[in-house]
Amino acid sequence: MKQKRIRDYGVRIGKLETGPNNSITDVEGVSVRHVTLSDHNMQTGVTAILPHQGNLFKEKLIASSHVINGFGKTMGTIQINELGTIESPIILTNTLSIGTAADALIEYMLGQNPEIGRSTGTVNPIVCECNDMFLNDVRARFIKKEHVFQALHNTSTDVEEGSVGAGTGMLCYSLKGGIGTASRLMKFDHGTYTMGVLVLSNFGILSDLKVNGKAVGEELKEAILEAQEDKDKGSIIVIVGTDLPVSERQLNRILKRTVTGLSRTGSIITTGSGEVVIGFSTATKIPHEQTGECISVSMIHEEDIDTAFRAIGEATEEAVLNSLVTATHIVGRDGNERPAFKDLLKKYDISLI
Amino acid sequence: MKQKRIRDYGVRIGKLETGPNNSITDVEGVSVRHVTLSDHNMQTGVTAILPHQGNLFKEKLIASSHVINGFGKTMGTIQINELGTIESPIILTNTLSIGTAADALIEYMLGQNPEIGRSTGTVNPIVCECNDMFLNDVRARFIKKEHVFQALHNTSTDVEEGSVGAGTGMLCYSLKGGIGTASRLMKFDHGTYTMGVLVLSNFGILSDLKVNGKAVGEELKEAILEAQEDKDKGSIIVIVGTDLPVSERQLNRILKRTVTGLSRTGSIITTGSGEVVIGFSTATKIPHEQTGECISVSMIHEEDIDTAFRAIGEATEEAVLNSLVTATHIVGRDGNERPAFKDLLKKYDISLI
Amino acid sequence: MKQKRIRDYGVRIGKLETGPNNSITDVEGVSVRHVTLSDHNMQTGVTAILPHQGNLFKEKLIASSHVINGFGKTMGTIQINELGTIESPIILTNTLSIGTAADALIEYMLGQNPEIGRSTGTVNPIVCECNDMFLNDVRARFIKKEHVFQALHNTSTDVEEGSVGAGTGMLCYSLKGGIGTASRLMKFDHGTYTMGVLVLSNFGILSDLKVNGKAVGEELKEAILEAQEDKDKGSIIVIVGTDLPVSERQLNRILKRTVTGLSRTGSIITTGSGEVVIGFSTATKIPHEQTGECISVSMIHEEDIDTAFRAIGEATEEAVLNSLVTATHIVGRDGNERPAFKDLLKKYDISLI
Amino acid sequence: MKQKRIRDYGVRIGKLETGPNNSITDVEGVSVRHVTLSDHNMQTGVTAILPHQGNLFKEKLIASSHVINGFGKTMGTIQINELGTIESPIILTNTLSIGTAADALIEYMLGQNPEIGRSTGTVNPIVCECNDMFLNDVRARFIKKEHVFQALHNTSTDVEEGSVGAGTGMLCYSLKGGIGTASRLMKFDHGTYTMGVLVLSNFGILSDLKVNGKAVGEELKEAILEAQEDKDKGSIIVIVGTDLPVSERQLNRILKRTVTGLSRTGSIITTGSGEVVIGFSTATKIPHEQTGECISVSMIHEEDIDTAFRAIGEATEEAVLNSLVTATHIVGRDGNERPAFKDLLKKYDISLI
Repeated sequence: MKQKRIRDYGVRIGKLETGPNNSITDVEGVSVRHVTLSDHNMQTGVTAILPHQGNLFKEKLIASSHVINGFGKTMGTIQINELGTIESPIILTNTLSIGTAADALIEYMLGQNPEIGRSTGTVNPIVCECNDMFLNDVRARFIKKEHVFQALHNTSTDVEEGSVGAGTGMLCYSLKGGIGTASRLMKFDHGTYTMGVLVLSNFGILSDLKVNGKAVGEELKEAILEAQEDKDKGSIIVIVGTDLPVSERQLNRILKRTVTGLSRTGSIITTGSGEVVIGFSTATKIPHEQTGECISVSMIHEEDIDTAFRAIGEATEEAVLNSLVTATHIVGRDGNERPAFKDLLKKYDISLI
Repeated sequence: MKQKRIRDYGVRIGKLETGPNNSITDVEGVSVRHVTLSDHNMQTGVTAILPHQGNLFKEKLIASSHVINGFGKTMGTIQINELGTIESPIILTNTLSIGTAADALIEYMLGQNPEIGRSTGTVNPIVCECNDMFLNDVRARFIKKEHVFQALHNTSTDVEEGSVGAGTGMLCYSLKGGIGTASRLMKFDHGTYTMGVLVLSNFGILSDLKVNGKAVGEELKEAILEAQEDKDKGSIIVIVGTDLPVSERQLNRILKRTVTGLSRTGSIITTGSGEVVIGFSTATKIPHEQTGECISVSMIHEEDIDTAFRAIGEATEEAVLNSLVTATHIVGRDGNERPAFKDLLKKYDISLI
Repeated sequence: MKQKRIRDYGVRIGKLETGPNNSITDVEGVSVRHVTLSDHNMQTGVTAILPHQGNLFKEKLIASSHVINGFGKTMGTIQINELGTIESPIILTNTLSIGTAADALIEYMLGQNPEIGRSTGTVNPIVCECNDMFLNDVRARFIKKEHVFQALHNTSTDVEEGSVGAGTGMLCYSLKGGIGTASRLMKFDHGTYTMGVLVLSNFGILSDLKVNGKAVGEELKEAILEAQEDKDKGSIIVIVGTDLPVSERQLNRILKRTVTGLSRTGSIITTGSGEVVIGFSTATKIPHEQTGECISVSMIHEEDIDTAFRAIGEATEEAVLNSLVTATHIVGRDGNERPAFKDLLKKYDISLI
Repeated sequence: MKQKRIRDYGVRIGKLETGPNNSITDVEGVSVRHVTLSDHNMQTGVTAILPHQGNLFKEKLIASSHVINGFGKTMGTIQINELGTIESPIILTNTLSIGTAADALIEYMLGQNPEIGRSTGTVNPIVCECNDMFLNDVRARFIKKEHVFQALHNTSTDVEEGSVGAGTGMLCYSLKGGIGTASRLMKFDHGTYTMGVLVLSNFGILSDLKVNGKAVGEELKEAILEAQEDKDKGSIIVIVGTDLPVSERQLNRILKRTVTGLSRTGSIITTGSGEVVIGFSTATKIPHEQTGECISVSMIHEEDIDTAFRAIGEATEEAVLNSLVTATHIVGRDGNERPAFKDLLKKYDISLI
């Protein structure tokens, strides 16, 4: 059954049109898969994002990363920023499983590219994480390499949201969080392009939550006496895909604007929140092998970039709200639990508009 | 007569208490002066901020800067970031007058410190700017060195807001902008401290304007047919003072959170908007001369820093709104004009709460 | 038997005195252990560095990192730079084993700190790598978690150099490279401190090699016809320990000066060379838990820092030369081999002074 | 009469061929002019570099900057790094004259572009500086706007070196320093390109000076008893021009390698030395005005970049040595003086090879 998303509650974020599925997979070539481990103390998972459907190591994409707040363990950003390219899929998982995830992703890349470590150099695996310790027994490190392999195969353009994949055990604004996605169309004289965002949300405290400017968090907090508002130990990972022709520098400028969307949901970017953005453009493929020629890269004129800034802010804001409103109630480690936003909206009859 | 500020319209930004004057000058030692040049085509000025009242070159303060968007010409940030200190007052003015302002500030520093360029090295002048070309004949470069000297003398803890000093010709959200200030108290077991912010606002388009979540910009835009919504060619300068004991790194983390406040007023951080933050802490004075000993610096535990993050976001948001709501209608260059927010609120009977 | 180091060849790098062992372990509290896997196609290993002998998670050290060239996969730098502290030992290994190493290091930290993932957050593992694919079957990923555990236990202040630990399969200037270390004393009115450096060297081509200004590489290249000068696909990891009282910013400035030493050995910092520096100061311990008070940090006056700049450049240069001159001849994967510098010096009777 | 340069002393730096004039002006379109003020206490000047001969504001070049050490006041880097382009000539002068120089450069740009501040935004002036206080009465601020205008007109491809222009009063390695230039050819399958470097040298202490690995500084120091080795309060500005097709990111990577050349002349990059690199590529012109289309940028494959890394290191090293060996003896402020390297070489009969 189709999940009820934030637009289904009447909320319209921003001014731009969404792509057909309002999803990161509106960007041609992008696909996603979740592996969800949900059973008592085990509330965690893996989400894989494939930036394109070919051999990414041989045909790299222009990429960039941006650290909003660095209390995080994301791997791979050093090389992305130096070389301006991405050459592996992106894995999202829990904080203490990054070693396993990296090892699995390396193995996957070695399998696809027998020349790595022989006739060519190594590969830069991209692994991002949030800490799901409240609902998940993160110390148990439930993620095994098979879960990562599984997530990397049979990815799809249908993206489930909420308490799935890496989002299974995540919290957001003291409620259940997880995976959310959204997209925006960007129209220029030279064409129409798509900005896609997928978030793994795990940050914020309830009283800060705003929905399109409405102080829903305050409202809810008064309604529910049981709300414990812990210190935010969260994080958010934002994955950005676009087919807009951009240079690495332009892409980096765009990624920095994710923070406008996050801020509008109420975030103050707490110290304990690892907030990392990784983005790629599918517009140009950069060959791994030298060709003896220069590479021609198409990029927008800088004056076009405001549309991309608006698009990414809106899509990030909406993706966070989608993660919140689709997430389901989970009882996890030691009986810890956090309410689902959608259940509270119903129970207390709160309108989002 | 006291200016009517955003709180006087019933708007309460955030959760923290303000300082006694809700101003950057609530931080002990900080003072400000505006020099305003307002006459037909000449709508510009200078604002000077003194971080403390002693000899800043000899007793430097821990400082940091952060570039939100670098389409700007602010001077002095390279050295601030390398050495982690500020050693001159801060001058705000229009973009094409930075040379004159720098020259004047250097002369002022030489006057105070006869050893500069003789027995010790040189000085790092801090000059920030926004572009007031719509209302001001910026090509005329009206600012002379005397205006800068004037602003640097007889600074005060009373800070006028709106269309004054460097803010005289600035626009914000397609309305009249300029100078705004605000402050927040930060309470810890080890003491209560103040976070002060002063902005020179010159960014945004009307339809994006939000006041504490309310889409006032949209509302106004429908009301006023004459509203031309130009491309944002603006900027914002955010000056931050605090007495919180912090390291340069911690201060930098704090400065980065100004963007949460800006975003909540509606900003998408357009490409043409030079957005630069400069901040200092008065908690520790760093001697210019070597003493033969180590320096002891007091800094908060990192777990305390969220309060500072919240404080700076709130103060920045409120300072921008104060700059908007205090600004007065100006008819400037070639009869260009932009309405004052407060006049529109009255005319169209719009409530901000 | 004591290894013959570069000083034993009459080479004196720089002007400053060395510490008693001319080693990173001259810094009180620092210890190191290598685990070496050397057998036919398997020429790799693990090196662990402990910054102090207590519980590093509970008593963190001020730390910083610097990327000279980012074609590398080092993990943990995002958080080091955000928080200015290190909270785990440092593991060096080969590029494709970082996942396993990270997983092992996480497990080690969980064992030491039962509160991680329960009453407190997670931990930031530091894993650095170079690519040893020429001599080692890097695709086989020989490193298992036990090797990492082994390296983390029974660390010592005696540091073997050359073809050991993570350095087992590394190349440097087209010769055998690996582990090297060196130290310098820094004398001030307020005390004498030590700057210690440990490198994992794996970069450069023979004709570029300079020993204290002497173009030994050119000389050798003419001597040995068999010298194949491959494209540099190398890297270098530089680990820096000091007891100098410094802020994170000061430490970062110091780390940036490692490049002066590298450059003087002949490096042009090729694109394929992941060159990453991680450093810590043992002068101040930062408690994990909030105490309700501010932390007092002692730091040198900025005018003292040139001595540290000189110390780190000299120690880095000497550590690289130590790694080269102590390394032994290895025949590895598919019979690949690279000569040992010391063997060539003897064979061709080349003087280094 | 042609100046005697470092090659005329038999010194060959590196492996690559120089351009026809071994000068930054070997890059097609680049021109330079010095204005020298040399009279008793007045030992200073202005050097202007034009990146191309058209209207730079309307046809910008891809550009980048890199701060090696930020104890400096260079203006314009914030915007260069944000937008990846340069739109004004580059002015070099003394530290306390940057305000005047900026004001003059703005005026020059306004003159060329009547639309600035009217129908388009503002302009980003690039002004770099070193501190010539030892030989020049820097407090007197002798530089007037006319000197800057003069330097900007009638620029040429003949570049005088040594004690000229902004280099008039500068010191290097405790000797007389100033302006130096050099170039290298870069050969690829797809063409031959030029890397040009111009330095304003003002750093280092005598005993550190190395010429192509030879410890000439030590040698000289023993010879001349009068040598006072002051604390290094210097700086170096490195201007880089190339016609290599590169992205902003690639150019930035290239600029970072200037430090290898500086290090090989003996630099330890002292704290007081403002070391800033600004570079541009003439390969692509970026139009100021939006065209409604995407821009096509040609860039080298990343695997080609090592040749550029080698070229810039060599050219920087040679440019510094050229600045040293061409500089003439100056008696300046209060009778302060520093010997000319070439005079000492003759007097003490020291060979550089």
